[in-house]
Amino acid sequence: MKTCLDCIPCFLRQTLDVARRANAGQAKQEEILKEVNKMMADISLKVSPPEITRSIYALIREKTGVIDPFKEVKEKSNQQANNLYSILKKKVEDSNDKLLTSIELAIAGNAIDYGLKDSLEINKEIEKILNYHSCLFNDYKTIFNYLEFKEALSKAKTILYIADNAGEILFDKILIEELNKEVIFAVKGKPIINDALMEDAYACGLDKCSQLVSSGCDAPGTILKFCSKEFLAIYQDADLVVSKGQGNFETLSEDSRSIFFLFKVKCPVVAKDIKCKMGDLVLKKSS
Amino acid sequence: MKTCLDCIPCFLRQTLDVARRANAGQAKQEEILKEVNKMMADISLKVSPPEITRSIYALIREKTGVIDPFKEVKEKSNQQANNLYSILKKKVEDSNDKLLTSIELAIAGNAIDYGLKDSLEINKEIEKILNYHSCLFNDYKTIFNYLEFKEALSKAKTILYIADNAGEILFDKILIEELNKEVIFAVKGKPIINDALMEDAYACGLDKCSQLVSSGCDAPGTILKFCSKEFLAIYQDADLVVSKGQGNFETLSEDSRSIFFLFKVKCPVVAKDIKCKMGDLVLKKSS
Repeated sequence: MKTCLDCIPCFLRQTLDVARRANAGQAKQEEILKEVNKMMADISLKVSPPEITRSIYALIREKTGVIDPFKEVKEKSNQQANNLYSILKKKVEDSNDKLLTSIELAIAGNAIDYGLKDSLEINKEIEKILNYHSCLFNDYKTIFNYLEFKEALSKAKTILYIADNAGEILFDKILIEELNKEVIFAVKGKPIINDALMEDAYACGLDKCSQLVSSGCDAPGTILKFCSKEFLAIYQDADLVVSKGQGNFETLSEDSRSIFFLFKVKCPVVAKDIKCKMGDLVLKKSS
Repeated sequence: MKTCLDCIPCFLRQTLDVARRANAGQAKQEEILKEVNKMMADISLKVSPPEITRSIYALIREKTGVIDPFKEVKEKSNQQANNLYSILKKKVEDSNDKLLTSIELAIAGNAIDYGLKDSLEINKEIEKILNYHSCLFNDYKTIFNYLEFKEALSKAKTILYIADNAGEILFDKILIEELNKEVIFAVKGKPIINDALMEDAYACGLDKCSQLVSSGCDAPGTILKFCSKEFLAIYQDADLVVSKGQGNFETLSEDSRSIFFLFKVKCPVVAKDIKCKMGDLVLKKSS
């Protein structure tokens, strides 16, 4: 997906948020924001939004010296999600269609996204998930290729599951436990927003149900040219690729390999691109 | 009020909105947005937000040749508001405190602001106003210097009433009719967002209850250095100055003359500045 003009004000809003999380003082915030304004005056709209976010975060890291401004947020998200494990697990067990329920919960868990929302909004989203009943989700499932997913799953031996955020990955664990296959779970290579790293995967016990790997990528998405050779080989060879979150969709949607994208629609640009509403829960097979 | 870093993403969002309203094509939108990014990389935060908005609008005018991208919106707002006149008037007549009710309605009418909201949101706000009961407003009146206003009004012979938006001025008319004084009603000098011009004042019949004047200013506020001499003389000499809207507050709040500011809090930067919540209805005497 290409960057669109509407992304630019959003990049600047995120810049300011991250500069503050990195404890930049007023003068440093101004310096960073103006630097990003300069960058925006020159950017190409031919790249995906996560590729631009990657450059912005690199600049903030350089200017503040803070490598991982979301470290505490991620730790808290993991703890919070771990506390939900037995409740979520029971929802799946009580369900008539365990696979469907675990997919719906995994998509709903994609609401844990500090690039676009704050803690207060995320807690409200989690509250909603805890009141989950499958029928409540039906209005939000405008693209939901469940039958295609089930069919691909039945044929697959190896699955690559590309993670999105810390905390959210606990919801992914619940889905992976239902897949009942050999799963390789890929996290980001370096800190970027609240995207899950290897340490988060361990914190949420993903090592218990999958083989962990780093994509090598330091963007809030999966930009293949920045991924490790090891990851690229897995990506090409896997029978089934599950991609979580908007950032991975934005960076992989134009790739030729077949992928199932699971995400919650959280920005109007993506909503327009796939002809969905904000808040929709998407299970989309790439064409 | 000084511009704050949080204003910058908002300026860019407005830039894109206005460029589109001025029918700029995709390439022109990109050119304008990038030009404004360049401008933002160099701006001084010592000026008020409307002074920066003024420069942005000048740039969009220059690049698109469209002088008044909100012309139709303003005409529609005036018509829509005129249709509400008798309903609003009855609300005032049925009230125990006619002055209070007309002030509350005038502040609520400040929701008609296309710089920050779109038509859909504005229609919802108008719907709320039509369901108006004074007690419903109490939670939103964290700053409401009504007694001071009544006292100042009782002593005043001449009142300068500085307008904000088209449509909204019909709500101002209802308040002016309750003031029962000699009122000079000041509109903007040139098109800027949906701010009321002389033609809007006539369209809403403000000429029937006040003397009309232009401030001469072409910013979405009242920047004294850009106002006409005629306006400045009235501004200095008036016994009471009523200023409507955030933009006028942002540009006049640091001036030494005594002013009563009436506005709805529509942006987090202003909310923080005056220690209010978003959505609050403010009647604030300048210190």
